[in-house]
Amino acid sequence: MKFKILGSGAGIPSKSRNTQSYILDVVEELNQYFLIDASEALQHRIMSTTIRPAKIKHIFITHLHGDHIFGLPGFLSSRAHQGGEGVPLYIYAPAGLKEWVELTLRTSASHLNYPIHYIEVAHNMEFDADGFKVKSYLLDHAIESYLYVFIEPDKPGALKDEQLKRLGIQPGPFYKEIKQSDTFEFDGQIYNTSEFMNPPTEGRKVAVHGDTRVIQHPDYLDLVDGSDLIVHEATYLDGEGEKAHLYYHSEMSEVQKNFSSISYGKLIFSHISNRYDQEQINSISSTLPENMLLAYDFMEITIPRDSQ
Amino acid sequence: MKFKILGSGAGIPSKSRNTQSYILDVVEELNQYFLIDASEALQHRIMSTTIRPAKIKHIFITHLHGDHIFGLPGFLSSRAHQGGEGVPLYIYAPAGLKEWVELTLRTSASHLNYPIHYIEVAHNMEFDADGFKVKSYLLDHAIESYLYVFIEPDKPGALKDEQLKRLGIQPGPFYKEIKQSDTFEFDGQIYNTSEFMNPPTEGRKVAVHGDTRVIQHPDYLDLVDGSDLIVHEATYLDGEGEKAHLYYHSEMSEVQKNFSSISYGKLIFSHISNRYDQEQINSISSTLPENMLLAYDFMEITIPRDSQ
Repeated sequence: MKFKILGSGAGIPSKSRNTQSYILDVVEELNQYFLIDASEALQHRIMSTTIRPAKIKHIFITHLHGDHIFGLPGFLSSRAHQGGEGVPLYIYAPAGLKEWVELTLRTSASHLNYPIHYIEVAHNMEFDADGFKVKSYLLDHAIESYLYVFIEPDKPGALKDEQLKRLGIQPGPFYKEIKQSDTFEFDGQIYNTSEFMNPPTEGRKVAVHGDTRVIQHPDYLDLVDGSDLIVHEATYLDGEGEKAHLYYHSEMSEVQKNFSSISYGKLIFSHISNRYDQEQINSISSTLPENMLLAYDFMEITIPRDSQ
Repeated sequence: MKFKILGSGAGIPSKSRNTQSYILDVVEELNQYFLIDASEALQHRIMSTTIRPAKIKHIFITHLHGDHIFGLPGFLSSRAHQGGEGVPLYIYAPAGLKEWVELTLRTSASHLNYPIHYIEVAHNMEFDADGFKVKSYLLDHAIESYLYVFIEPDKPGALKDEQLKRLGIQPGPFYKEIKQSDTFEFDGQIYNTSEFMNPPTEGRKVAVHGDTRVIQHPDYLDLVDGSDLIVHEATYLDGEGEKAHLYYHSEMSEVQKNFSSISYGKLIFSHISNRYDQEQINSISSTLPENMLLAYDFMEITIPRDSQ
């Protein structure tokens, strides 16, 4: 599982940062990509990667501000000619997106050759994206904006084949039967499967934020707690917390402080305003502990198991 | 007057060609730019030029296919923060654009700080864009698509000051008075101003096409005749006229042939499909006469006076 940043900027694109689009690469797990937000020039960005548009099957839109959705129509239209024929697409987004996409496709006479399923997101929902659990949480922004928490399913442990062999059971089709039920019978005796299995590997957890103020609600912190990766906005990087609050955004050090009571693997600050130049970025970046990073375009992070 | 190509491609962007956006640079004449079509990543392209978004005051949309309009919302939103405050914008486009732009701005909660005036284009209309005459002509495409012909106003000739001096009139404020009326009085006698003025310089004419089949109608050829620059689509470059016709597009050699009866300065073939590689482009380009060119991204053409 990898996290890829196609656009790490806020509001208006700059030469160094495009506006927000993210990829959660679950190719190894599900042979597909989850897309989070779809800023203008998303399809142009994808051209510079090895991502095949048809392998994007679930799109999660955090909120409807233009810098998060204006690349959606172009992506949808082009996907139809880029292997997407007949490959259904699921779009999770706040109310209003469906109506806009549909009028856009109608106005531009774009005929898609695959179905789109729209899922209207609200607070505290839970979706199943091909086995991944995805939870939504309503953030604190000028308009309805969501956090999406992606939870990989636990991976069942392997059978303890030494113990099975001691009972006299040899590797073979019976192993599969054992794995599939809670108990099994051998030589007239009933056994609990759990005693013959290694513990499961816990699935990873990735929390990706839409634009928001810092949120201190315990339900929110509980939900984010234990994430292997948190991606949070930091439109303001350098001690302008009041201004950030006023404009419904976050300031980096306040995000850091807010997460001091929870555990996590890595924390990426993204959605960075383009008023910071590279020198400032470098200087701020050098003050961060090892598990915190400032996002940049085309950044790629591998999310290891048990990273926190 | 210059013509600048921000995107010379068709349908889907490629690494070498973005989809269609053009600039008619009338900075010297009107201190502004006319924009023709607004493909996705228009605002990103503009960043790579010296064009200030607020100096775009008239936008002409040829037709509503996505590869010609999906960059409009991002451009409009960003213009508000890029010096556009209070600078009115005129958008000329087929029916349907206004409704889409308005829903887009509403959905994305984009608040513009300048007024937009929408002008719904139909066949054979004539607009005044700050002194430039702009004529529309309905082309032959799968959906309503227009040609825009931009006609610069004629520039009045200078006064023949040698002749005036011979009458005893010296340069000064009286010169201005003479210029402003058809006749003038000096020393008790009435003169016709026209006899003391050099002939006017004819304004330039630029014809920019939306997607279309080749059109042979005499009204159309009359309208394009005498253009200093014609920009025509050539989605097909290499002898696939039937296919071009089937898909409501044009093939290069048929455009050439069609214009053999009219006069013009330069002819640019643009809206080039991305199935041609650079080698093919170079080879086709090398067969063209000097006044015909294949478009490329960021191409810039100066349009001289009396170029044809």
